[in-house]
Amino acid sequence: MLSQIKSPEDIKNLSTKELKQLAAEMRSEIISVVGKNGGHLASNLGVVELTIALHRVFNSPKDAFIWDVGHQCYPHKLLTGRYDRFDTLRKAGGISGFTKIAESEHDFFDSGHSSTSISSALGLLVGRDLLNIDGKVIAVIGDGALTGGMAFEALSHAGQLAKNLIVILNDNQMSISENTGSLSKYLSRLTMTSQYQSFRHRFDHMVKRIPFVNKALTDFVFRLKRGLKGIIFRNNLFVDFGFEYVGPLNGHSIVELETVLKRVAKINRPVVVHVVTQKGRGYSPAENDPTTFHGIGPFCISDGTVEKFDTLSFTEAFSNTMVSLGEKRKDVAAVTAAMMKGSGLTTFAHRFPDRFFDVGIAEQHAVTFAGGLARAGIRPVVAIYSTFVQRSIDQVIHDVALQKAPIILALDRAGAVPDDGETHQGIFDISLFRPIPNMILIAPASAVELNLSLEWALTQNLPVVIRYPKSSCPTEQEAFALPMEEGRGVMVSEADGAKLLFVCTGGIFPEVLEASRQLLLKGIANDIYNLRFIKPLNQEHFLNIVAEYDAVVFVEDGVRIGGIGAYLESLIHVHFPKIRSKVCGFSDNFIPQGKRSQILESAGLAPFQLALEAELLISKSAEVSKEREKSL
Amino acid sequence: MLSQIKSPEDIKNLSTKELKQLAAEMRSEIISVVGKNGGHLASNLGVVELTIALHRVFNSPKDAFIWDVGHQCYPHKLLTGRYDRFDTLRKAGGISGFTKIAESEHDFFDSGHSSTSISSALGLLVGRDLLNIDGKVIAVIGDGALTGGMAFEALSHAGQLAKNLIVILNDNQMSISENTGSLSKYLSRLTMTSQYQSFRHRFDHMVKRIPFVNKALTDFVFRLKRGLKGIIFRNNLFVDFGFEYVGPLNGHSIVELETVLKRVAKINRPVVVHVVTQKGRGYSPAENDPTTFHGIGPFCISDGTVEKFDTLSFTEAFSNTMVSLGEKRKDVAAVTAAMMKGSGLTTFAHRFPDRFFDVGIAEQHAVTFAGGLARAGIRPVVAIYSTFVQRSIDQVIHDVALQKAPIILALDRAGAVPDDGETHQGIFDISLFRPIPNMILIAPASAVELNLSLEWALTQNLPVVIRYPKSSCPTEQEAFALPMEEGRGVMVSEADGAKLLFVCTGGIFPEVLEASRQLLLKGIANDIYNLRFIKPLNQEHFLNIVAEYDAVVFVEDGVRIGGIGAYLESLIHVHFPKIRSKVCGFSDNFIPQGKRSQILESAGLAPFQLALEAELLISKSAEVSKEREKSL
Repeated sequence: MLSQIKSPEDIKNLSTKELKQLAAEMRSEIISVVGKNGGHLASNLGVVELTIALHRVFNSPKDAFIWDVGHQCYPHKLLTGRYDRFDTLRKAGGISGFTKIAESEHDFFDSGHSSTSISSALGLLVGRDLLNIDGKVIAVIGDGALTGGMAFEALSHAGQLAKNLIVILNDNQMSISENTGSLSKYLSRLTMTSQYQSFRHRFDHMVKRIPFVNKALTDFVFRLKRGLKGIIFRNNLFVDFGFEYVGPLNGHSIVELETVLKRVAKINRPVVVHVVTQKGRGYSPAENDPTTFHGIGPFCISDGTVEKFDTLSFTEAFSNTMVSLGEKRKDVAAVTAAMMKGSGLTTFAHRFPDRFFDVGIAEQHAVTFAGGLARAGIRPVVAIYSTFVQRSIDQVIHDVALQKAPIILALDRAGAVPDDGETHQGIFDISLFRPIPNMILIAPASAVELNLSLEWALTQNLPVVIRYPKSSCPTEQEAFALPMEEGRGVMVSEADGAKLLFVCTGGIFPEVLEASRQLLLKGIANDIYNLRFIKPLNQEHFLNIVAEYDAVVFVEDGVRIGGIGAYLESLIHVHFPKIRSKVCGFSDNFIPQGKRSQILESAGLAPFQLALEAELLISKSAEVSKEREKSL
Repeated sequence: MLSQIKSPEDIKNLSTKELKQLAAEMRSEIISVVGKNGGHLASNLGVVELTIALHRVFNSPKDAFIWDVGHQCYPHKLLTGRYDRFDTLRKAGGISGFTKIAESEHDFFDSGHSSTSISSALGLLVGRDLLNIDGKVIAVIGDGALTGGMAFEALSHAGQLAKNLIVILNDNQMSISENTGSLSKYLSRLTMTSQYQSFRHRFDHMVKRIPFVNKALTDFVFRLKRGLKGIIFRNNLFVDFGFEYVGPLNGHSIVELETVLKRVAKINRPVVVHVVTQKGRGYSPAENDPTTFHGIGPFCISDGTVEKFDTLSFTEAFSNTMVSLGEKRKDVAAVTAAMMKGSGLTTFAHRFPDRFFDVGIAEQHAVTFAGGLARAGIRPVVAIYSTFVQRSIDQVIHDVALQKAPIILALDRAGAVPDDGETHQGIFDISLFRPIPNMILIAPASAVELNLSLEWALTQNLPVVIRYPKSSCPTEQEAFALPMEEGRGVMVSEADGAKLLFVCTGGIFPEVLEASRQLLLKGIANDIYNLRFIKPLNQEHFLNIVAEYDAVVFVEDGVRIGGIGAYLESLIHVHFPKIRSKVCGFSDNFIPQGKRSQILESAGLAPFQLALEAELLISKSAEVSKEREKSL
């Protein structure tokens, strides 16, 4: 049946039975494709019925759905003409795991970060009003995303404007990892309110008492009861913000959802519809462990087992170091913003629950809270993905760097991030942090170097950022174990008579190593210098290192603009105008989804490309040398 | 009496009458110093009694006060040993207009930005708990600052941790400009609740009925009633977040405040104390117009009149352009985050109320909301100060640049910002925005160029940032009126046979012009090129321009790291290795308070310093030329 759905219009006339089958087919399609391609599973399985109900009651794209984060948009994609391409999910050139304007007129924004939907939706609605464009605007936001502060900024503004914005609160009692914060407790209390419970009880009881209950009658009674009682206005948080409140509704009953949504569509004020859904619904491994099945790599569909990497990932190396630091030092605490599992803090959290803080999807608070901890004498390590730390740039400047608060920011998923696309690349952090005074930036290249970096950072009286990629750690090199010296990198690999030097940030070391090897095979001697420190950088030391070479290739897993490569190249130009140089890094574009290797290749950072650039450079250097010799 | 207060201990034994006199003296000192030095007046006058009560009930610094934003900390400074230096307020080398760790053990954080206090305070409290350090932690936050999303992130986390954090909600029904958002309405409703009203009424009535009412009895009855009834727990927003709620209290009654705060100090859970204060209290010009007297320059104390600048400021130029654009185009809207007056949008707001949106202190929402408006077809202009846009870097990346949403970000107070110190300098925006793909950055040098920039930006299909300083516009030059050409600047001043070129960002043009003049007086011919575009920058055009010179001095009113000067210098090095160059900009430090000229001089950007650098450079160039000639 699913294959017949070309647009939301095609589901409007289906029977309840057919809708049930459709939901089942959608689930099976999602499980099958995510099993192969990886992706967000639990969140998408949870909103199948909700998505069907929304697309039956409203008319997309005239009515606009704004999916917060977008990690629950697979059912929406399946109903809006993207079934045919759904197996390309998250692959290079395939459809995105998030909403994407370029993919469909049914997607209104490119998404990926949390808590933006109410703001975007309100802007769209107000803009349409100003231009006299018709249509409802519906933001769908999870309880996790609601913990992000900007969602409250938007609620407050929306309540004031009093336009008919519809906010669907998809309450699965779970953000990326287990939901935290009093807000989450509050939502549970709402769900458990006696009104709701007693209503459900009375309704079920009544239906059972009807002697010759048949489908039509059940539906009729159901509609009647929901019509009269389903919309429960209560004095609560959302009402305080100026919204009408409806719910909580059973998010897996299409009939219940439709009945209420039809009424909601007629309310001419901002309204929150509280829908309770189950993450992972319909796939027991995901129902039982929704955190693991939130964002997941390919897995075995029959039992949900995930292939384990043989090699140690940077996340695991961080995890191990944190546990050992937690044991050694009582003053070390860990803070994360709903990324406990993803950032490798699960073991730390279990071992040191008093010193572990998951603040919810609230990167701003995470950073400033850590600044406060540091002021008391604690050494907090804040684990945030590189792309999400963009949320707390001002807090890093104002509440950390200015205060010289010695917190450690551990940025996982720095550099190229596979599969998730533009919104998840960790390519801006170097450029965003370099201009901030008092900051120390380190990019370790291996597990040992990450460990050393963390230990060294704890001896500093300034904030330290440590960034590392979402990839497995490379084979250790002797140089990685050398003691940390502020502002100095290490020479990792040296060849006799090398006149070519690679200078790299840690995350891209494996690619540089392979480029170096390819050149060595061709007889082109070359050395590799791992910067370790992006800031501060001991200029004299660096200049002494490069002085011996004819050509230097900088390789950086971040954007070139404002990066460390561009800076060091200009230093070389001033001091050694005869050294030829080249900066390889991400150019001035958003980077689409793909495997890590595909992303790097598209950016000119694949080993063969780096080798080629180096060869080109060294041959030019040779020409210059020859010319110089001739002219003597 | 105030001059006798060396520490908070000195006010603990004062009588009610003495406290009244103290409050009066503090007000008069604040009015007198702010009248001379400028500063935040209304917010400080509003918290005199609250500050006295807090310092009497709690023991600073063992108990820690965290003042949100810090613009209400003058009374706190007067009571913590800074009366002697209070007349140096906001002057170079003087005491700060915000809290400052370096100034006093009573200041726990350097402050200036909004909505951070609950996060900082919670971190401090939790950290102290972990280290077994005693002491209460009290965050004082205004109703305006509460509209910032991170305050909610912090409330949610604090409610969950259930530690005895005390949050004083200083409700003056006003943020920087008039408070907006449903939150503000909500707080008014709380204040107006019948319980509070009826209690106040009954209490007043009862006191009046006592025949021989004397002071002691009144106080006794007052204490009794407050003790029993003053603490009103209610089901409200703060209770939803897991806090106890106490209030609303009369923020100008020291007795009432003390009675309740003493009880609050014993509550072993997070508590919000809702205190109602009047902005500008005790100085009628400020009471009547708190927005004007929020942050103000020197004024005449007798009548509150403010000296008007004769010259047009950039803010006024922006204001005028916005009104004219609003008239010409129905699709132009304005968005601001509680900076209506400061950013010059008052007239626009009155003329086009339907197209004006003040979202409260909520920069994140402001930017994403504007992204939504743009998606509907509106052309929003978002006016935010440069330092505050740091709050919305991720939103600019994720909700604007990635979506190619054609919003205009008008960044007032870019570059050196007088008087407010480290937290308010607008020196990071260029470096933060340059690495973001799809962004256009313009730095106009005059009112006409600002006007042209805005009009040009409205013709673009990409987001445009326009940055300009908090200063008066320079005399117009012919070149400023030349049509905008993407990526190209204009030659503003040309001298015969000049071999020296100044290249500047718009905000620092007046200093460059004066440096140029000083050199001309010495017979050193030089030209001035105003970049206009920081991004994109037409390299070929730029290289053609500089090709004619021996020396180029880049002058930039932003940090050098990641700035446009450093980038262009490296470009010159590659293409014209013989041209000597120098980049003048802010070095890698936070910039303390001072007058604009003092700030610029401390950064080496005063005209005489720029002239000196240029002279040095050109003389070196001359040497090089001579050597070159010799060697031929």
